[in-house]
Amino acid sequence: MHETSDIPGFAYADGGVVAPLGFLASGVSAGLKPDGRRDLALVAAETSVPAAAVFTTNKVVAAPVLISRRHISAGRARAVVINAGNANACTGPQGEADAIAMADAVAAGLGCNPHEVVVSSTGVIGVPMPVGKIVSAMPEAVAALDRRGGDAAAAAIMTTDTVAKQTAVTLEAGGRRVSVGGMAKGSGMIAPNMATMLAVLTTDAPLTSEACDVALRSAVDVTFNRITVDSDTSTNDMCLLLASGAVGGEPISPSDPAFADVAAAVLTVARELARMVVRDGEGATKLIAVTVIGAASDVDADVAAFAIANSPLVKTAIFGGDANWGRVAAAAGRSGCALDPASLDIRFAGIEVCTGGIAVAFDEDAAAEALAQPDIDVEVDLHLGSGTATVWTCDLTYEYVRINGEYRS
Amino acid sequence: MHETSDIPGFAYADGGVVAPLGFLASGVSAGLKPDGRRDLALVAAETSVPAAAVFTTNKVVAAPVLISRRHISAGRARAVVINAGNANACTGPQGEADAIAMADAVAAGLGCNPHEVVVSSTGVIGVPMPVGKIVSAMPEAVAALDRRGGDAAAAAIMTTDTVAKQTAVTLEAGGRRVSVGGMAKGSGMIAPNMATMLAVLTTDAPLTSEACDVALRSAVDVTFNRITVDSDTSTNDMCLLLASGAVGGEPISPSDPAFADVAAAVLTVARELARMVVRDGEGATKLIAVTVIGAASDVDADVAAFAIANSPLVKTAIFGGDANWGRVAAAAGRSGCALDPASLDIRFAGIEVCTGGIAVAFDEDAAAEALAQPDIDVEVDLHLGSGTATVWTCDLTYEYVRINGEYRS
Repeated sequence: MHETSDIPGFAYADGGVVAPLGFLASGVSAGLKPDGRRDLALVAAETSVPAAAVFTTNKVVAAPVLISRRHISAGRARAVVINAGNANACTGPQGEADAIAMADAVAAGLGCNPHEVVVSSTGVIGVPMPVGKIVSAMPEAVAALDRRGGDAAAAAIMTTDTVAKQTAVTLEAGGRRVSVGGMAKGSGMIAPNMATMLAVLTTDAPLTSEACDVALRSAVDVTFNRITVDSDTSTNDMCLLLASGAVGGEPISPSDPAFADVAAAVLTVARELARMVVRDGEGATKLIAVTVIGAASDVDADVAAFAIANSPLVKTAIFGGDANWGRVAAAAGRSGCALDPASLDIRFAGIEVCTGGIAVAFDEDAAAEALAQPDIDVEVDLHLGSGTATVWTCDLTYEYVRINGEYRS
Repeated sequence: MHETSDIPGFAYADGGVVAPLGFLASGVSAGLKPDGRRDLALVAAETSVPAAAVFTTNKVVAAPVLISRRHISAGRARAVVINAGNANACTGPQGEADAIAMADAVAAGLGCNPHEVVVSSTGVIGVPMPVGKIVSAMPEAVAALDRRGGDAAAAAIMTTDTVAKQTAVTLEAGGRRVSVGGMAKGSGMIAPNMATMLAVLTTDAPLTSEACDVALRSAVDVTFNRITVDSDTSTNDMCLLLASGAVGGEPISPSDPAFADVAAAVLTVARELARMVVRDGEGATKLIAVTVIGAASDVDADVAAFAIANSPLVKTAIFGGDANWGRVAAAAGRSGCALDPASLDIRFAGIEVCTGGIAVAFDEDAAAEALAQPDIDVEVDLHLGSGTATVWTCDLTYEYVRINGEYRS
């Protein structure tokens, strides 16, 4: 496990995506959310900068994902524009034209090439984009770009999120004080695969495009790709890293001695944001960390951890404060991972409940108290090898059903 | 799709597992359910008869599954005993001894070999079996065996089920009037794989052991293995078929001309019971049939249909009466099946909502009315090949969360 204490001069910082030098952000209302809340976010560098992105692996991809994949292909970007309230997915050629129109509007405001603009959308699927509203609001979004615009941008990308999600860190890397910041949205349809719903990470370290790509992919693999709210992967997932290089100095490539520390900071920001997404999972009252050790392989550990983390029975038991660990055993058993039922140990909220596949008597009062905490650890030891994995999830509650039974209407 | 109209002399009948000649059943209270309801079921033939069973593929298997696999291995059985209220899972060697004690008690009452008794348990996992209560109640269960005991047996195997589940059919096969009956339990932890939670099927047709096995497996493959309530597969799943041969005549092997009709009747009973299980899924208000056609293969259709049927977002949308078909597209897209987003058609509750991957305008009032029905069809055409699959599921409701947040306590 990567520890922040290993990062030279590590400290948390305020500001989210604009904590690093060389970035401006804004969040305005284009009128897509019915109540007039901010729904259009813009994050821009002062010029085209090295960048990398990962996108959803869903085969049904939203129009902005198609456009952004093309725009980021050269490893550089000037800005990212994100609207909430409409996903621009299952919208066909018109959807692609609308995503291009968003990039064009940003380019006109910033005076850059439209190919330097990454476009992202989040909201309901299969409804035509009210792109006119977005294009009309773009001059205001450009005019509002500010060194202190992180809060507004983070608020503008929220859909069913109940809190804005942003964080930033600073560190010493290659003799310079650099920052890494980020914001994310995501609350439901969260089982990212190569990216979360939407996240924008920024740094003022002079990473090369390749360094952006390596740092982003390795961070996403163990953070955004290890969370699940409801096992559903979105059509719009994207995670973007922009490197302004505003602190100056020689470009940092993956082989540079300073790279590892910056990459560790990127991972820290990604992990914090990923955990925020799960903690704010639709209807969630608890953050659950499922850790599987002793698996025959890391892949096996991953399969078992995701089966447990996605089990509605495990998630409702934890919502109900019930140490019903038999559901953990059943989920691991059906996951497809190699497993010997006679050598299965389970710890539930820190309490040994199953050893060698057999129930261990435990103090129900102590269990109830442990399960009342906001953070619950579920730990499984398969005693077969050295494979490990941790997946973060949340409980399944009445509120999840309410939110998703009423979302579109 | 198999049609009951193709079965000679087909008719539904009363009686469940005792509709076929040659079977007796009972259901009594052994005191495992806290409120004194029936919790011990017994179904017995007059002698050892051809039989077959399929069991859970969960690697964490309950003790009675281990014992019953052994007892059924010769292709014959005299009786099946089932208790509700305790799953006898994760109970180690003591659990196996307890399952054997249940078989011994039945054998003592019936005057047969313990190896002729199939044992099954359902209820909470990881709690030691109160086997003394079951053994003490066995003489009463044996004494209560009756030609009209189907209702009592079907009631005794219920856990979170809200209705007892049984059905029976009669048909002409090989010049004889034969019957096939069955009962099932299951409401949560339902994503059977090779069997449902618990089902007992009976017939008075003189099927051989091999014919039992072939008829049972082919029926289970397209019925109990095509339902899901919550994507969780139990540690105790079992489906058993007993053939008394009480109508007389030559044994029916799989190559016998009469076999296909009896097998079709077995499939009908299995399908009816499977649909009853889903309709009574924990907290369910709707039965949802997800059909995928035009897939590159049947396996691909199956993968896509299960992804849609297990999607909490699809299930909550249908609970909320919301034609939010974008969630169907997203689930199909992430399922891993081959899919071209530009040739994806979706019908939701009989309404064309997506053609060629693009939203189709539809009448929201008509959709709301269609979604208010208790049976909802979700149909996806991938236009890639001839692969098809249908999976049955239910909606995800507040009541599911209540039941499973409070189940064990």
